[in-house]
Amino acid sequence: MNAEILAVGTEILLGDIVNTNAQYLSKELSSLGINVFFHTVVGDNENRLETALELAFSRSEIVITTGGLGPTYDDITKETAAKLLNIPLELNEQVLNTIKNYFSKAGKEMTVSNNKQAYFPQGATILYNECGTAPGFFIKKDNNILIMLPGPPNEMKSMFSLSAKPLLQKLSDGILVSCEVRLFGIGEASAEEKIAHLTKSKNPTLAPYAKQGEVLLRITAKANTKQQAIFLNDSMLQKVKKSVGKYIYGVNVSSLQEVLVDLLKEKKLKIAVAESCTAGLLAKRITEISGASQVFECGVVAYANSIKQSILKVNATTIKKYGAVSQQVAIQMAKGVKELANSDIGIGITGIAGPNGGTEEKPVGLVYVAIHSQNNTILVRNLLLGRGANDREYIRFVATSNALDMAIKELKNYN
Amino acid sequence: MNAEILAVGTEILLGDIVNTNAQYLSKELSSLGINVFFHTVVGDNENRLETALELAFSRSEIVITTGGLGPTYDDITKETAAKLLNIPLELNEQVLNTIKNYFSKAGKEMTVSNNKQAYFPQGATILYNECGTAPGFFIKKDNNILIMLPGPPNEMKSMFSLSAKPLLQKLSDGILVSCEVRLFGIGEASAEEKIAHLTKSKNPTLAPYAKQGEVLLRITAKANTKQQAIFLNDSMLQKVKKSVGKYIYGVNVSSLQEVLVDLLKEKKLKIAVAESCTAGLLAKRITEISGASQVFECGVVAYANSIKQSILKVNATTIKKYGAVSQQVAIQMAKGVKELANSDIGIGITGIAGPNGGTEEKPVGLVYVAIHSQNNTILVRNLLLGRGANDREYIRFVATSNALDMAIKELKNYN
Repeated sequence: MNAEILAVGTEILLGDIVNTNAQYLSKELSSLGINVFFHTVVGDNENRLETALELAFSRSEIVITTGGLGPTYDDITKETAAKLLNIPLELNEQVLNTIKNYFSKAGKEMTVSNNKQAYFPQGATILYNECGTAPGFFIKKDNNILIMLPGPPNEMKSMFSLSAKPLLQKLSDGILVSCEVRLFGIGEASAEEKIAHLTKSKNPTLAPYAKQGEVLLRITAKANTKQQAIFLNDSMLQKVKKSVGKYIYGVNVSSLQEVLVDLLKEKKLKIAVAESCTAGLLAKRITEISGASQVFECGVVAYANSIKQSILKVNATTIKKYGAVSQQVAIQMAKGVKELANSDIGIGITGIAGPNGGTEEKPVGLVYVAIHSQNNTILVRNLLLGRGANDREYIRFVATSNALDMAIKELKNYN
Repeated sequence: MNAEILAVGTEILLGDIVNTNAQYLSKELSSLGINVFFHTVVGDNENRLETALELAFSRSEIVITTGGLGPTYDDITKETAAKLLNIPLELNEQVLNTIKNYFSKAGKEMTVSNNKQAYFPQGATILYNECGTAPGFFIKKDNNILIMLPGPPNEMKSMFSLSAKPLLQKLSDGILVSCEVRLFGIGEASAEEKIAHLTKSKNPTLAPYAKQGEVLLRITAKANTKQQAIFLNDSMLQKVKKSVGKYIYGVNVSSLQEVLVDLLKEKKLKIAVAESCTAGLLAKRITEISGASQVFECGVVAYANSIKQSILKVNATTIKKYGAVSQQVAIQMAKGVKELANSDIGIGITGIAGPNGGTEEKPVGLVYVAIHSQNNTILVRNLLLGRGANDREYIRFVATSNALDMAIKELKNYN
């Protein structure tokens, strides 16, 4: 089977956003054994959209559109596609009620144009939207399959993986099962080199993906039964472990913070964090995990030195002697917040996220992460992050990733 | 004039790389007053490439290709395009010498296939490559202009800006200037209804874009001079202000936090934040702005009630009487962090981000935001956010957006 991905949105043609949806879908389709032959982007213009859809139907069995499902006047994708396939649109009462509920719950006024989102081509399978109001749909007509997904990447991804992918899997001959291996502390190129001998495998396939500061390896096996596919994946996983085992922080997990929160829950330990340059990002990442309140006590964002002293009890002379960005201050911050919160583990982060504030001795990207753990165990990592002075976001993110990674490693040492 | 961007590369169709070249070129073309109507991506397959190029020539005056200029066997773009335009390829001696020099300087062996890079359609203007070996070219044939650029983004960008852009500028009939208006507190559909009478304008154009919890309106004018375009934009901006003025928090700004930090700097005021359900996200957003350290004192993530009491001095009886998620606690958190940091403004946020922890009386999405400002001014917003129980991220984000919006409004009232 072959597919075409058609993005609808003038904002992509204006260069306001990058078409990352096409990349996500290409990878997913490829893992399903479906060849993607074309990506097309077209604006919110009825004539050009119609031409593009007509062409897509003529040359591709599966056409997946992203965008153009919202309530506004320029969202004409659904209407145009239905016209081309010669299928009338009909109202779906259940969807209408969901939209009505959303608006009444949010205390917002529902406009007439919101009604449009509840109309679908007759016979379509509705794909519900877990993250927004615009539902998508899946429909088969003659030799074509049309899947319409919303434009915002979080809505599109959740809808594809939860609803559209299982429908496509049914069309495929055999079952595909994937297993995700997450690595921290190694770059994509190095990881790729270490597993090069494995990536030539046809079944299961092994593919690396660079994530921010991390590498994700996806193993995908095709087999007649789920059990067979899992067996194939497991044997590849063993080989992967031999090659890059020491960088693996989790298998089939979603993030460092998920692994950390699970470990803390399991061991019934509590954590508190003190942040300077990362300014709340570590607290935010830990508490992204539902139920983090069982293990996360408190976070202090101590930007000003006076706050480091008054709340975290960092020694004024230490700051004077070594500077606020120093290993010594990171350690005292970790200890200070641990005592403040009366937690089992305290983390302290101080550094220079840039773009300003760097010196020759202490450049942008210099970050100290300290952990004050049980039994007064102290761990420190001195980092030099970033690929230039414009990497504030990157430096902050990878600094918090290092803190999470350190805490995970420390917890795995606990009895 | 209108243009189409055609990327050639199987690696894009496999999802291995994102087509960021298309975004860069779209922005550049838009700034030249050239409309981009289509993006297409096609693999290194001669038949499909030929079809895609033929279609592009038939519907677009300017066709810009990226990729497929390298020396390897699958780089067939140039040959295919020359065949379609019916122009023979001829050897360019100067380019051949440049390539020879490059290889001898690099101490590498030149392969026969490198010779291919020195052939160009007769009459083409060569676009030299400052960052690699593959040159591009510009050619006009009948009603079409074809520009071929290399695939690697650094090579493509430098070639476009140094060589191709000046050639296009000569062809353009005017310049485009955009102005961005950012709205908070109104949904996309409602905003659209209120400005519906303005979106029909052809010059300047007015287009709404939904952002997370916000709406962006872009006004774009085309004129002979920059000054004329700005004048046209200003007159549209006045009309937009009449329709949705009370929701506008900034013009040509990037975010709520940017506006807040600028206001705080201007008024030489300092801020501190106490967060429960948003858990560091507000601190993180404020400190995303470089130089925030001048105005941001400290943040406290008080997840546990004991921390709310010990650090923020929230009254234990208040928590007992009204619950940790209450207007009263939000107010005390704001006051507590203001006093702790000795800042001018304190913000307190408490709520239920979900997916668990909601009750009938206090459902998921219930958030209280309080500001304790100068002269003991207290402001509170009671929010009911989210579109369902799976909106943890959304609830947290929009809660912090509300806090930023409240602080901006309060600061604008200051003398």
